[in-house]
Amino acid sequence: MLKANIENYLACDAQYGEAGIVLYGAPFDSTTSYRPGARFGSRAIRAESYGLESYSPYQDKDLADCAVFDSGDLELSFGSTGDALTDLRSRAGEILKDRKIPFMTGGEHLVTLAAVRAAKEIYQELHLIHFDAHADLRDTYLGVKLSHACVIRRCHEHLGDGRIHQFGIRSGDREEWSWGRAHTAMHPYDLSEDALQQTLEALKGKPVYLTVDLDVLDPSVLPGTGTPEPGGVSFEELRRAVTQVCRGAKIVGADVCELAPMLDMSGGSTAVACKIVREMLIGLG
Amino acid sequence: MLKANIENYLACDAQYGEAGIVLYGAPFDSTTSYRPGARFGSRAIRAESYGLESYSPYQDKDLADCAVFDSGDLELSFGSTGDALTDLRSRAGEILKDRKIPFMTGGEHLVTLAAVRAAKEIYQELHLIHFDAHADLRDTYLGVKLSHACVIRRCHEHLGDGRIHQFGIRSGDREEWSWGRAHTAMHPYDLSEDALQQTLEALKGKPVYLTVDLDVLDPSVLPGTGTPEPGGVSFEELRRAVTQVCRGAKIVGADVCELAPMLDMSGGSTAVACKIVREMLIGLG
Amino acid sequence: MLKANIENYLACDAQYGEAGIVLYGAPFDSTTSYRPGARFGSRAIRAESYGLESYSPYQDKDLADCAVFDSGDLELSFGSTGDALTDLRSRAGEILKDRKIPFMTGGEHLVTLAAVRAAKEIYQELHLIHFDAHADLRDTYLGVKLSHACVIRRCHEHLGDGRIHQFGIRSGDREEWSWGRAHTAMHPYDLSEDALQQTLEALKGKPVYLTVDLDVLDPSVLPGTGTPEPGGVSFEELRRAVTQVCRGAKIVGADVCELAPMLDMSGGSTAVACKIVREMLIGLG
Amino acid sequence: MLKANIENYLACDAQYGEAGIVLYGAPFDSTTSYRPGARFGSRAIRAESYGLESYSPYQDKDLADCAVFDSGDLELSFGSTGDALTDLRSRAGEILKDRKIPFMTGGEHLVTLAAVRAAKEIYQELHLIHFDAHADLRDTYLGVKLSHACVIRRCHEHLGDGRIHQFGIRSGDREEWSWGRAHTAMHPYDLSEDALQQTLEALKGKPVYLTVDLDVLDPSVLPGTGTPEPGGVSFEELRRAVTQVCRGAKIVGADVCELAPMLDMSGGSTAVACKIVREMLIGLG
Amino acid sequence: MLKANIENYLACDAQYGEAGIVLYGAPFDSTTSYRPGARFGSRAIRAESYGLESYSPYQDKDLADCAVFDSGDLELSFGSTGDALTDLRSRAGEILKDRKIPFMTGGEHLVTLAAVRAAKEIYQELHLIHFDAHADLRDTYLGVKLSHACVIRRCHEHLGDGRIHQFGIRSGDREEWSWGRAHTAMHPYDLSEDALQQTLEALKGKPVYLTVDLDVLDPSVLPGTGTPEPGGVSFEELRRAVTQVCRGAKIVGADVCELAPMLDMSGGSTAVACKIVREMLIGLG
Amino acid sequence: MLKANIENYLACDAQYGEAGIVLYGAPFDSTTSYRPGARFGSRAIRAESYGLESYSPYQDKDLADCAVFDSGDLELSFGSTGDALTDLRSRAGEILKDRKIPFMTGGEHLVTLAAVRAAKEIYQELHLIHFDAHADLRDTYLGVKLSHACVIRRCHEHLGDGRIHQFGIRSGDREEWSWGRAHTAMHPYDLSEDALQQTLEALKGKPVYLTVDLDVLDPSVLPGTGTPEPGGVSFEELRRAVTQVCRGAKIVGADVCELAPMLDMSGGSTAVACKIVREMLIGLG
Repeated sequence: MLKANIENYLACDAQYGEAGIVLYGAPFDSTTSYRPGARFGSRAIRAESYGLESYSPYQDKDLADCAVFDSGDLELSFGSTGDALTDLRSRAGEILKDRKIPFMTGGEHLVTLAAVRAAKEIYQELHLIHFDAHADLRDTYLGVKLSHACVIRRCHEHLGDGRIHQFGIRSGDREEWSWGRAHTAMHPYDLSEDALQQTLEALKGKPVYLTVDLDVLDPSVLPGTGTPEPGGVSFEELRRAVTQVCRGAKIVGADVCELAPMLDMSGGSTAVACKIVREMLIGLG
Repeated sequence: MLKANIENYLACDAQYGEAGIVLYGAPFDSTTSYRPGARFGSRAIRAESYGLESYSPYQDKDLADCAVFDSGDLELSFGSTGDALTDLRSRAGEILKDRKIPFMTGGEHLVTLAAVRAAKEIYQELHLIHFDAHADLRDTYLGVKLSHACVIRRCHEHLGDGRIHQFGIRSGDREEWSWGRAHTAMHPYDLSEDALQQTLEALKGKPVYLTVDLDVLDPSVLPGTGTPEPGGVSFEELRRAVTQVCRGAKIVGADVCELAPMLDMSGGSTAVACKIVREMLIGLG
Repeated sequence: MLKANIENYLACDAQYGEAGIVLYGAPFDSTTSYRPGARFGSRAIRAESYGLESYSPYQDKDLADCAVFDSGDLELSFGSTGDALTDLRSRAGEILKDRKIPFMTGGEHLVTLAAVRAAKEIYQELHLIHFDAHADLRDTYLGVKLSHACVIRRCHEHLGDGRIHQFGIRSGDREEWSWGRAHTAMHPYDLSEDALQQTLEALKGKPVYLTVDLDVLDPSVLPGTGTPEPGGVSFEELRRAVTQVCRGAKIVGADVCELAPMLDMSGGSTAVACKIVREMLIGLG
Repeated sequence: MLKANIENYLACDAQYGEAGIVLYGAPFDSTTSYRPGARFGSRAIRAESYGLESYSPYQDKDLADCAVFDSGDLELSFGSTGDALTDLRSRAGEILKDRKIPFMTGGEHLVTLAAVRAAKEIYQELHLIHFDAHADLRDTYLGVKLSHACVIRRCHEHLGDGRIHQFGIRSGDREEWSWGRAHTAMHPYDLSEDALQQTLEALKGKPVYLTVDLDVLDPSVLPGTGTPEPGGVSFEELRRAVTQVCRGAKIVGADVCELAPMLDMSGGSTAVACKIVREMLIGLG
Repeated sequence: MLKANIENYLACDAQYGEAGIVLYGAPFDSTTSYRPGARFGSRAIRAESYGLESYSPYQDKDLADCAVFDSGDLELSFGSTGDALTDLRSRAGEILKDRKIPFMTGGEHLVTLAAVRAAKEIYQELHLIHFDAHADLRDTYLGVKLSHACVIRRCHEHLGDGRIHQFGIRSGDREEWSWGRAHTAMHPYDLSEDALQQTLEALKGKPVYLTVDLDVLDPSVLPGTGTPEPGGVSFEELRRAVTQVCRGAKIVGADVCELAPMLDMSGGSTAVACKIVREMLIGLG
Repeated sequence: MLKANIENYLACDAQYGEAGIVLYGAPFDSTTSYRPGARFGSRAIRAESYGLESYSPYQDKDLADCAVFDSGDLELSFGSTGDALTDLRSRAGEILKDRKIPFMTGGEHLVTLAAVRAAKEIYQELHLIHFDAHADLRDTYLGVKLSHACVIRRCHEHLGDGRIHQFGIRSGDREEWSWGRAHTAMHPYDLSEDALQQTLEALKGKPVYLTVDLDVLDPSVLPGTGTPEPGGVSFEELRRAVTQVCRGAKIVGADVCELAPMLDMSGGSTAVACKIVREMLIGLG
C-alpha cells in the first residue's frame, strides 16, 4: 500500500514526540513595503534542501543524528496582520509548552514578533540576538505599527532595555540609530567574533532567542530578499556567527527570515538560506 | 533653469483643472493570497507607456487630444488594508467631486472597493461592469473579509442585486457560482459582443463603473498576474470589449487591476496593460 | 501534537484504500536531448496547484468529491534510464493491481513507456491515445533506443499496429511521418472534436491509456517545455479534448508530461499543466 | 585530424558555389529606441535551430534538400549606423551578384534598408512586401533619419510609390497612417490570405523583396522583441503567409528581423523565429 | 487640487535655484558592443532609490540635508552618437554655468566624454579620476572613434598627459596597457586607499571630474552591466573609495555609468548603484 | 566567395597541426541529480568569450600568441552514459596521441572520467589535481556508479591511492570525507597557495591532469551551476590557483566543468568561466 507524500526539510524526519527542535514555516509578507515574496521563503527552503548534504564538515555532525520534526507551513491570512501573528504565536507557544525549540522559517521579519512574544511568556528573562542589515527600530512605518520595519521596536516593548543585541546593522533612519544606541546593544556593520563572544559570555545561562534576517548578508551572496542593502557580510561570516551563537548560547527559539526566492532565479540565495538553516539546526541539535 | 522631472502615462499631460479624466495609481497588494507583485502594476504601466504610440488606429483618435491628468501613485500602508482603502476612497472622492472621471491603475483587485464606494456616494444608481477570470464573490477568504477574493461580494453589499454585471468569469468555488447566479448578472467564459450590447442598452443613461481585472485575459497574453487562470480571452476580445463599454456606457469611474509586471520579465504583459489603458482613455476621452 | 507535513496535489487527500485514482510523479529527464528540466514538472504541478480552485465550472464538479490519492514523486536514478523505467513500471503495476487508475505526472515523455508496459500486462487489448507536437516515432535517437524521441515507437513494439491514435502531431523527420502513416492512426496538427469522437466510438469498451505531452500546446500557451514547437493548439482545445477522452473512454491509465517549469519563470506554463490535470482527474473521477 | 567548428543554421551546409540561397546575420540594434537586444537575434536563430526538425510536414519537403549556405554574422560597428549599413549592403550585393538570394536575419529593422538598396541596384522594378506591427514610415525619429522607425520611409525613397505592400500594420502615429495610405499599399491588422493573393497576382513576374518584422506576431507568440505591440497575428497566420509569399512570388531577397532573444528567457520567441526561417527557406528552396 | 507626478532620486527634492548639485540621466547605449541595456540605468537608479534610507550611517549625514535637484533623464537620439553627445554636453554646460555640480547617471561610459568636455571649457586644469575594470583607451573600436571602449582616450585628447588617474583597471588589449602606462596614471586591479590618498594630495585645490564605471565592481556584486569582468573590487572598497574622493577632492562634476538593470533581474545591481550614488551625493553635499 | 561560419573560443584559431592545445566541448549532463543545464556550458563559454580581451594583464601574455585549436562540441547521447563516455574518451585519446593537450569544457563533472582514462593510458604515472566544492567520492549515487557524484571515486579506481589531490572541498556525506581522508590528499575549504605549492613540488616532472569543477567558487561568484554550495572561494583565489597549477605543473590534460549558464541569466557565471579558461590556456600556452 502506497504511503502519503510527506515533505520535510532535509533529514528532519523525527517523530514529534522525540524531537528537540520543531520547524515551522511562516509564509507571510503582507507588511513588506518594498518587494514582496518572502512568503515563499519557507517553502523554498524545504523544497530545495535536498541539494545539500545532511552532514556538516564544519561541525563534523550529521543533521540526521539530530532529532528535528518539520511541521510544515501554517496557512496564514494575507491582509490581516493581527490574525497571522496570532496564529504564529499559538504555534510557537504549543511547541514551547512541549519543551521543544521552535525554529521558524519566514516570511518577512515581522513574524519574529509572534515567536518572541510566545517565548517571553515562558522565559521572563528572554534576550534577543538579532542579525540584520536594518535596525527595524521605527515606531511606525507608513502609519503602521505592525510592520517589518518596526519589528525589533515592537519586541523591545516586550523585552525592555538591555535585552536586545543587534549585529550587522548598516541601515536605518537617523532616529532609529539614535534610539537604538540608547536602548539596544548595537554592533553595526559586521558579525565580529569578539563582540559576539562577549555577548555570549554576558548571557551565559540566560534564555536567548536568535533571529536572523538574511539580508544581513551582502546582496552578492543573497540577492533574493525584499530590501537588499549592499555592504553586508559574507556567507562564511554568517555561517561562523550562527554556529557560534547556536552552540554558545542557551537558545530557546530561533528563526531565519526574509528569503524571497523568486527574486533570485539562480537559486543561489535559496541555497544560502538552506545551508544556514542546516548549520543552525546542527549547532542546536 | 532646468525643470522638475514630471512623469506621466503616455501623453497624459493636461492641467488638472482642464482634465476630464484623472489617472491615479494604487500600489497595493497586501491581501493577494497567491503571488504578490500587483503593487508594481501602476508604476510599470506609467513607465512603459512610452513604448506605445499615443494614436489609436482602431479608434482613429489620439490620446494627446483627450484631456487626461496623471496624479501619480498614492503612498499606501502595506499591512493595513483599512488605511489603504480609506486613502484610495478619499482620492477617488476628490476627483469625483471635481466632476472628473477617476481612472485607477492597480494594484490588486481589492482597491476597486474603495473607488466603487466613492462613486456610490455620488451616483446612487451606480452599476458595476466587471471583467475578470475569477468571480471574487467569496464572503471571506482565509478568514478575511477585505480580500481580493471577496471584492465583488463587498461591492454587492453597497450596490445590491441587479447592479453587478460580470463577464469572462471562469473560476470560483461552487458556492461563488451559485451565489453569483442568484445575485449578479454572470456571463461566464468570454466577453461576448452581443451580451455586452444588451447590457449597455439596459444601462442606457445610468452611471457605470468599469473594473477590468486583467487576468480575464488568457495567461498566454498576460502571464504577469498573481493568479493566472488558463482559458481566458484574447487581447483583441478585451480591446474590443473595453472600447465598446467605454464608448457605449455612461462611465463615471474605471480601473485596470492585477498586472504584476515582475512575473513577466519579457514585458509583454505590461505592454498589454498599457495598450488597454490607452484604448480605454481614448474611448472615454 | 503537531502533524507531519503532507503535500498533495489540490484536494487529492483521499486514503489510498478508498481512492479510484492514484497520482505519482516521475521526475526524470535524462534522455531529453534539447533543454532539460521536465524533472521538475511533477513537483511544480503539485506545489502550484493551490493557485487553482478545486471546482470546475466546465464540468460542474469538484475535485474534492473525487477519490484521488497522491503518492508523491519517485526517487529515480538520473543517468540510468533502465533503472528509472523499472521503478516507474513497478509503481504503475502496483496501482493497477489494486484496481486503481495510475495517473503519472512527468518528467520527460519516455516515462510513458513504463506505464504503458505495466498497463499492457493487465489489459491485453490496450489502446494508446497520444496528444503531442512530436511523433516520437524514431527507432533510435543519437544512437539510443530508450529516448524521449522514440517513446511511441517503443510503445508500438508492445501494442502493435492499429492500437496507437496520435493527435496534434506537427513535427518529426520524414521517416517518422511515413512510418507513422503506416503503423499508427495519425491525426496531425489539431485535436479535432470529430476525429476524437470517431476514435472514442471505435474504442468503446476497450481499455485506453491517455498520454498528454503538453508541448501539443502552442508555445505561447506553454513555453515551459523542453522542445517548444510553434503552431500548436490553444488551451481551450486541449481542455476540451482531454475532457472528451477522460469522460468518453475507458481510461485505465493516464499521464501528463514535459512541463519544464523553470523554462517559464512567469508560472503560466505550470498553471496550464495544473488545470489540465484537474480537468482530467475530474473527468475520470 | 580534427575539423574546425563550423556552425550553421539547421541543415544549411551547402557549399557556397552550389547554393541558391545565402544566409547572413546582421547583429545590429544601435537605433532601437525602446528595448535593445535584436543584435542577438541572428546568433540565437542559428544556435537554437537544432531544436527543430529539418523536415516540414506543412510543405512535405526537407531543408536538407535545399541548397542553402550560411555565411555567419557580420561584425558591425555599434554606434556608427552608416558604416554598418555600408557593410550590410556590400554583403547583400556580393550575394546578389553571384545570382543567389540573400536571406538576412536581423538585427533591428533598419538593416532591411541596406539589403533593399543592394537589390534595387540589380532589380530596377523591385517591390517590397512588408509584414510588421509598425508602419515604420516616420520621416525622422528623435531627430534621426536612419532609424528603425523610419526604415520603410527610407526604402520608399528608393522604390517610390506603389512599390511597397504593407501587411499587419497596427501601430504608427497619425501622420504615418495618412502618409502610408497615400504612398504604400497598406493592409492593416492581419495577413489576409485573399489580400496577399491579390498582391501576388499583381506582382506576377516582378522581383520582390520580403521583409518580416517578427513583431507582426502577437506578443503572446513573440514577447522577445524590442517593441511588443499587442493585438497581432498568430503563428499559424504568419507561417501560412510567408509560405504563400515565398512560393508565390519571385523573391530576390528576404529577411527576418527584430527577434530580441534575451527578452524572452523561455526560448519560445526564438523557436518561433527559427521555424519561420525554416518555412521561408523551404518555400524558396 | 491634485499635484503633478514629480519623480526624483531619493530625497533629491531641492529647488533648482538653491541646489548645489544637479542630477541628470543619460539614457544612451548605442555604442555598447557587447550587451546593451545601460540606457535603462538612470531610470532604474531613480525608480529603485526608495528602497534605501536617505540617511548614511557611514557618513552620519542625511541626503535630505543636502541640496540636490533632479532634472530627470534627457531624451537622446539612439543611432546618432554625435547628437546625443551634443545634447549631453549642453546639459552639463548649463549646470556648470550656474555654478552647480553636474552629476550624471548613465548610460554607457561614452557619455562621460560630453560632461568632461563641458567641464574642461570652464576648468582648464581639469583632472579626471576614473574607476573602471576596462582601460577604455582604444583609439578606435570596430572602426569607430566615439565608442564606449575609447572614451578615456577621447578624454585624453582634451585633457592631455598627466591629467587622467585610473584605478581598478583589469582589462584592455596589450596596446591599451602600454599606451596607458605612458599617458595616464594607471593603478590597476584595486582601489587602494593609499594610492588614492597620494593622488588626492597631488590634486589638492585642482578641479576634478570623477567618473565611476560600475563594472569596476566584481560581477558577483554587479552582474547587471554590459561587459562583466571577473576579479573586481567589493562594494565596501568602492563605497570607501568614492567617499574618499568625494570628500577629499575639489569635485566639479561626476558620473556613475554602465548599470544595465535588466541584466540582473534580482535587483541587486541596481541597489548597489543606488547606494553608491547616495554616498557620493552625501560626500559632495 | 563567402567563407563558412567557423566559431571558436576567443582567439583560438590555430590550425590543428600547429596547435599545442586542443579545446573540445562535452555537452552532457544526464547524470546530474539536482539541477541540469551543464550541457550548455561549453557552448556558452565559446559564444560569450568575445566579451573578453585575449590579452591577460595578470600574465602579460596574449592568447592569440598561444597555439590553440578549437574542435567544437561533440554530439553526445543523452540517456546513454556509457556511449557518451566512450565518445569523449576517444576524442581525448586522439588529441593525446597527437602529442597535444586536450582541454575539455563541460558538461557535468562525470565527463572528466573519460579524459582521465584516456590520459592514464598514455601517462601511467598520472596524477589528478581536483578543484571542487564536492568530494565526488561516493561509490554509487541513486544506485548508479557512473554519476557526477562518484566521478573522483571512479578516477581513483584507475589512478589508485596517493594520486588524487583535492582542493576546496566543502561538501560530501560523512563516508566520503572519511574515505577521502584515507585515499586522497584532501585540502578542504580553500585553494591555499602554500598547499598548492607543496603539491606542485611533490609532483615535479610528473604528468598531471587538472580538473576544475567551477562550483568550487562561491555561489555569489558562480550561481550558474547545478549544485551551488555556499562558502566557496573568490574569483581571485581560483584565478591565482589555476595559474599557479597551469604554469607550475606538467599538465597533460585539463578541464573546466559544471557551468550551467541558464541558471544565471545575468551572464556573470559564464563570464567567470570564460576568464578562467582564458587564464588556464594562457598559463599552459
